[in-house]
Amino acid sequence: MELLKQKIKEKGEQVRALKAQKADQSLVDAEVAAIVELKKQLNGITGEDNKNKNKILLKVPKGTRDYNEIEMAIREKVFSTIISVFKRHGAVTIDTPVFELREILTGKYGEESKLIYNLEDQGGELCSLRYDLTVPFARFLAMNGTQSIKRYQIAKVYRRDQPAMTKGRMREFYQCDFDIAGNFDPMIPDSEVIKIMIECLTELDIGKFTIKVNHRKILDGIFEICGVPEEKIRPISSAVDKLDKSPWKDVRDEMTNEKGLDPIVADRIGEYVKLKGGKDLLEKLYQDQKLCANKNAKGGLEDLVLLFKYLEVFEVLDMISFDLSLARGLDYYTGIIYEAITEHSGPPTLEDGTKVARKLKKDSDEFDETTIGVGSIAAGGRYDKLVGTLVGRTNSDIPCVGVSIGVERVFSILLQKYKPEQVKANEVEVYVIAVGDGLMEDRMKVCAELWNAGIKAEFMYKAKPKLQPQFSTCDRYQIPFAVIIGKDELDIGQVRIKDMRSKEQGGGGGSSVKRSDMITELKLRLGKV
Amino acid sequence: MELLKQKIKEKGEQVRALKAQKADQSLVDAEVAAIVELKKQLNGITGEDNKNKNKILLKVPKGTRDYNEIEMAIREKVFSTIISVFKRHGAVTIDTPVFELREILTGKYGEESKLIYNLEDQGGELCSLRYDLTVPFARFLAMNGTQSIKRYQIAKVYRRDQPAMTKGRMREFYQCDFDIAGNFDPMIPDSEVIKIMIECLTELDIGKFTIKVNHRKILDGIFEICGVPEEKIRPISSAVDKLDKSPWKDVRDEMTNEKGLDPIVADRIGEYVKLKGGKDLLEKLYQDQKLCANKNAKGGLEDLVLLFKYLEVFEVLDMISFDLSLARGLDYYTGIIYEAITEHSGPPTLEDGTKVARKLKKDSDEFDETTIGVGSIAAGGRYDKLVGTLVGRTNSDIPCVGVSIGVERVFSILLQKYKPEQVKANEVEVYVIAVGDGLMEDRMKVCAELWNAGIKAEFMYKAKPKLQPQFSTCDRYQIPFAVIIGKDELDIGQVRIKDMRSKEQGGGGGSSVKRSDMITELKLRLGKV
Repeated sequence: MELLKQKIKEKGEQVRALKAQKADQSLVDAEVAAIVELKKQLNGITGEDNKNKNKILLKVPKGTRDYNEIEMAIREKVFSTIISVFKRHGAVTIDTPVFELREILTGKYGEESKLIYNLEDQGGELCSLRYDLTVPFARFLAMNGTQSIKRYQIAKVYRRDQPAMTKGRMREFYQCDFDIAGNFDPMIPDSEVIKIMIECLTELDIGKFTIKVNHRKILDGIFEICGVPEEKIRPISSAVDKLDKSPWKDVRDEMTNEKGLDPIVADRIGEYVKLKGGKDLLEKLYQDQKLCANKNAKGGLEDLVLLFKYLEVFEVLDMISFDLSLARGLDYYTGIIYEAITEHSGPPTLEDGTKVARKLKKDSDEFDETTIGVGSIAAGGRYDKLVGTLVGRTNSDIPCVGVSIGVERVFSILLQKYKPEQVKANEVEVYVIAVGDGLMEDRMKVCAELWNAGIKAEFMYKAKPKLQPQFSTCDRYQIPFAVIIGKDELDIGQVRIKDMRSKEQGGGGGSSVKRSDMITELKLRLGKV
Repeated sequence: MELLKQKIKEKGEQVRALKAQKADQSLVDAEVAAIVELKKQLNGITGEDNKNKNKILLKVPKGTRDYNEIEMAIREKVFSTIISVFKRHGAVTIDTPVFELREILTGKYGEESKLIYNLEDQGGELCSLRYDLTVPFARFLAMNGTQSIKRYQIAKVYRRDQPAMTKGRMREFYQCDFDIAGNFDPMIPDSEVIKIMIECLTELDIGKFTIKVNHRKILDGIFEICGVPEEKIRPISSAVDKLDKSPWKDVRDEMTNEKGLDPIVADRIGEYVKLKGGKDLLEKLYQDQKLCANKNAKGGLEDLVLLFKYLEVFEVLDMISFDLSLARGLDYYTGIIYEAITEHSGPPTLEDGTKVARKLKKDSDEFDETTIGVGSIAAGGRYDKLVGTLVGRTNSDIPCVGVSIGVERVFSILLQKYKPEQVKANEVEVYVIAVGDGLMEDRMKVCAELWNAGIKAEFMYKAKPKLQPQFSTCDRYQIPFAVIIGKDELDIGQVRIKDMRSKEQGGGGGSSVKRSDMITELKLRLGKV
């Protein structure tokens, strides 16, 4: 932070110096823009909002944000990495509206339903912004009679949650979903979805991660044999889901006090949900006769045996942690569930090894971002009943399994890795520069030739630009080549091509080529032939 | 339509035949899916909604729609064509939230403001869905202190308008915007924006189009010298904007009856707004002494002289029609305005040469789609005051000029050109097929090898699939290569590679290669080396 303040001070001095030298306005503008950028970074760090002195409060709605061109360049790389994995596995893409009829979303999200954004009733249908991409996907399947599809969808979803912006927890955020719908043999699509999740996270290069896996039927079986009444199974499951951020004591409190569970039952659950491991744990549970006598638990264990076999074939079993505390909040899962976590996922750990308790900022409903982690960075599971529920007939069920990559959380991790100046947002290959009297129309003509040949090119939007600002623009945007035109050379049908990345600097330089060879020469240098 | 009904009947007979033959379920499923698709097309044409017999009404909100994988493949091609033009001109991209604080959108859209979607007040800030990408862009500039940027943004916007779905007029639709912000010499960015618009529409291959151009200052000058009171200038301008869809008589009625303009003034306006032409019209207006004595009109004419000169340099002047009836509805334009129209833009023409009057469907607020055209397919203009208005200080103005490509309208034109079966939604390169006893784990292992080598591959999600359905899948999805594995060949370290596009058919075929050479051989055949 001190470094930023120092930088801002230095830049301020540079601007004053440039002004004193009566430097070209574009140079001054560039420095001023750099200062504004630095100040924004500083505000981001100190958590101060831009103090606004204007008539309209210029801000984005709480929990949402803009992305500038540097951030977008990183985000587009994230999206294209993920899409290339999805396509490698044969996925197609579909699109659905940002809002849905409200009744389609109702009753699908358990305790989280209160976080749904509604559209105002302005006459006509009652609608809400989508909360995830899964329910709209199920609605798409039900409506179109699609029997099987492997689809991805990358789109924004909306949750009226407490934001923690720098941790990628926002009210408007992207989800990158991949789902396989259709009647297939057990655990084959499930294992491929987990393989895809691992390929995505590996290629995104976010560091070490683990995939926690569990099965809703095993959890349900555990709840049943521990004595949880049927109507409390989903609420108790929601409580268990908080074990990644809260200690057992708090979760037990929620079960017994808030949700009225018998403390003896809670303690029995506690014995199970602290278990984690690999194939060994699976074998251990198979020896638990009470558990295996339960139909749900038995079915779940059999699924996991098959899943682990397939994951071994895919050579990814070593990344899996079978974790009985994983429950996932959403109501619609019916089979295996999983989520990926990294070292950034959990809250910070104190010196004594305990985890920092999450708390809100003073006088605010936003989280204090130093008290929380980014959470899971990918998650999903099997949901075999959702389509049938929407259609209202169980014989219309279409079994589905999928994963959602938490791209905002991935982005928040990657943003810390990249320095803004390392990212090239602009892809311009050639800058057309005039020496002498502006040559406005000639620059336009040369540029149009380049565009028509598919070369990315720009020129300065000034009728009579000076030479130096034209060169500085090349440098600022790391444009690799300049085409330099002058009256005398144009008259004899020549232009100069200069490689701006070479050290040789100054107004001159570059090699003369015939105007008619310009495109061929540039394509050669750009590796476009 | 009769053709579709015929096709549906034929497919139905095929399904019955397949069932009679006890054909593999996947073949039957494919045919059933094809029927559902055809029925949807038929419903689209006849305007019938899906009659729904289920508990929840399974539909998307009015004015919105899903896009299936075939439609998305076409849409993604449209987007990538447009993005490549934008990037060729040096654009970067940014992203802004789908909803904005309501007060930021207030008062920016003139008569259209009533079409803004509001979010329900669920506590906290009052927000509305964005109506376009221009006001959020201006808000972005004002908030971030950006002095100059050349940016594109492709995103959804929302308008509570009367939909006409097959004409690309929807309540949720994409805009593809390109804007240049910054203080530059006159008409240089303006001419480049028009050049970009022409490049996009040319490369999208939508057929012949024309760019109508006008200037807000010329229009204002005309209104002033005709005697329109200042407070009526924007409303009268809105009325003029309807001349592309309504005859002069109706527009004159709106001016005189609804908007209380003196009929003599209206008739004077009528004389001007019927003028259209090219450079000749510009010269003619220069000889109109009354017009040239008006400061606004004079300034506008000077801009157009310069603009036409630059467009001539870019070799696109022949596509331009200077049209005094072009007004554009939005309030924020301050300089040149333009829109692109095609033969599909206007309403259908009757035999006597008059245009069909637009009307609503019976008992509905949706348009009868046979009475309207797709409208303009790209439009934009200069807006120099919008950023300053948001900041609340005119000295904070950042001049901007931009264009929005009407991608939904382009899509509706292209959809008529492509046949669904010509579009390959899925990019799979290799299908892994087992001969014999399923070889589940071996198929998985081979597929994982292919994925790890960056080859797009799939296998059938069945433990013991029959041979024929595996081959049919290749054919149905036009997958070019099959890797065929059998126990005996695997034992001696071999697999077979079969080019599925060659005529040679049946269970056998393909050439044997060593398992260890499989990747190299496939990459060679796929042109990946």
